[in-house]
Amino acid sequence: MEFKLQEAIEILERTPDTLICFLSGLSNEWLLANEGAGTWNAEEVVGHLIEAEKTNWLLRVETILQKGENELFPPFDRFAHSKNQSSNSIEEKLHEFKTIRMQNIEKLKEIIDSGTPFELTGMHPEFGPVKLRELLSTWVVHDMTHISQIVRVMAERYREDVGPWANYLGVLKRK
Amino acid sequence: MEFKLQEAIEILERTPDTLICFLSGLSNEWLLANEGAGTWNAEEVVGHLIEAEKTNWLLRVETILQKGENELFPPFDRFAHSKNQSSNSIEEKLHEFKTIRMQNIEKLKEIIDSGTPFELTGMHPEFGPVKLRELLSTWVVHDMTHISQIVRVMAERYREDVGPWANYLGVLKRK
Repeated sequence: MEFKLQEAIEILERTPDTLICFLSGLSNEWLLANEGAGTWNAEEVVGHLIEAEKTNWLLRVETILQKGENELFPPFDRFAHSKNQSSNSIEEKLHEFKTIRMQNIEKLKEIIDSGTPFELTGMHPEFGPVKLRELLSTWVVHDMTHISQIVRVMAERYREDVGPWANYLGVLKRK
Repeated sequence: MEFKLQEAIEILERTPDTLICFLSGLSNEWLLANEGAGTWNAEEVVGHLIEAEKTNWLLRVETILQKGENELFPPFDRFAHSKNQSSNSIEEKLHEFKTIRMQNIEKLKEIIDSGTPFELTGMHPEFGPVKLRELLSTWVVHDMTHISQIVRVMAERYREDVGPWANYLGVLKRK
C-alpha cells in the first residue's frame, strides 16, 4: 500500500487550482464539448466535483470515525449536478469548488492525522465494509479520474483534425 | 473539422500553468512514480514537452510555410529528454517549459493567423504529406495526451489502496 495522508492532501489541495488554470476563460466550444448523448462536458464534471465535496467525502470520513460499520454512508447522487442546474459561470463554479475543497481539507486535518488508524472501517451501501484508507485514496483518484476525463473529452473534439497522428496520441485511444 | 487557431492557442497557453499548479511542490513519491520499466514519470514527461517545444512544433510549422512538401520535417527525438538528463528541479523544468512555450506562441502568432490556409502541406518522414491544420491540432492533443499520462501514472500508485472502488475509477481502467 502506498497511501500516506500528507501525500494524499498534496493532490487534494492542488486539484482546484489545476482546473482553474486549465478551464478559466476557455471558449464554450471546449467547455461544452462532450462525448455524445448522456456524457458530461467539462463544466458538468466541475459541478459533479462540487456535489461530491458537499455530500460525499468528508461526510463519509466522519461516518467512519463516529459510527464505524454501524451506519451506512450517507447517500451520494452522482447526477445531482444535472438536477441542480446552476447558472454560474465556469469561473464561479471553479472558485466554489476551490472554496469548499479547501474548507474540507481543513476539517479533515482537524479530525484525522498521520497517526489515525487508516484501517478503520465504515459500511458502504454496495461494497459492505470499506477502510478509511480506501475512502481517502479514492478521493484522490476520483480527482485524477475527472481531470483525466476533462482532458479526454476536450481532446475528442480534434480526433478528425489531427489526421494521421491520431494513432500516436494516447488520449484519443481511451474511451 | 473543429480546428480554429484561437481555440488551439487557448489550450497551448494554458498547459504550462496547469502543470505548474498540479506538479510544483509535490513529493518525489508522486513525481518519480512510473508505470514500470521503460515508462515515464511526471518529471520525464515535462522534459519531453520541453524538447518538443525546442525541436518539433514550431520548426515544423515553419517548414510547411517555407518549404511546403519539398523538405522533410526536421527530426524529432521522442527520447531526447532521457539523453539530455537535467539536474533542474521540477519547478525549474516547469518554468523552462512555460518560457519556451510562451515564446513559441508569440512566434506562431507572427507567422500565421486565422486567415492562413490551414490545408497547406508539409512532408512528414513517415506519414508523407500532412496538413498545417493536422500539425497544429496535434500540438494541442499532444499536450492533452501528456497531461492525461501524468495523471494516469500518478493514479496508478493508489490502484491497490482504493480497494473496491478500483472498478469505478475511470483513470485506473486505461493503460
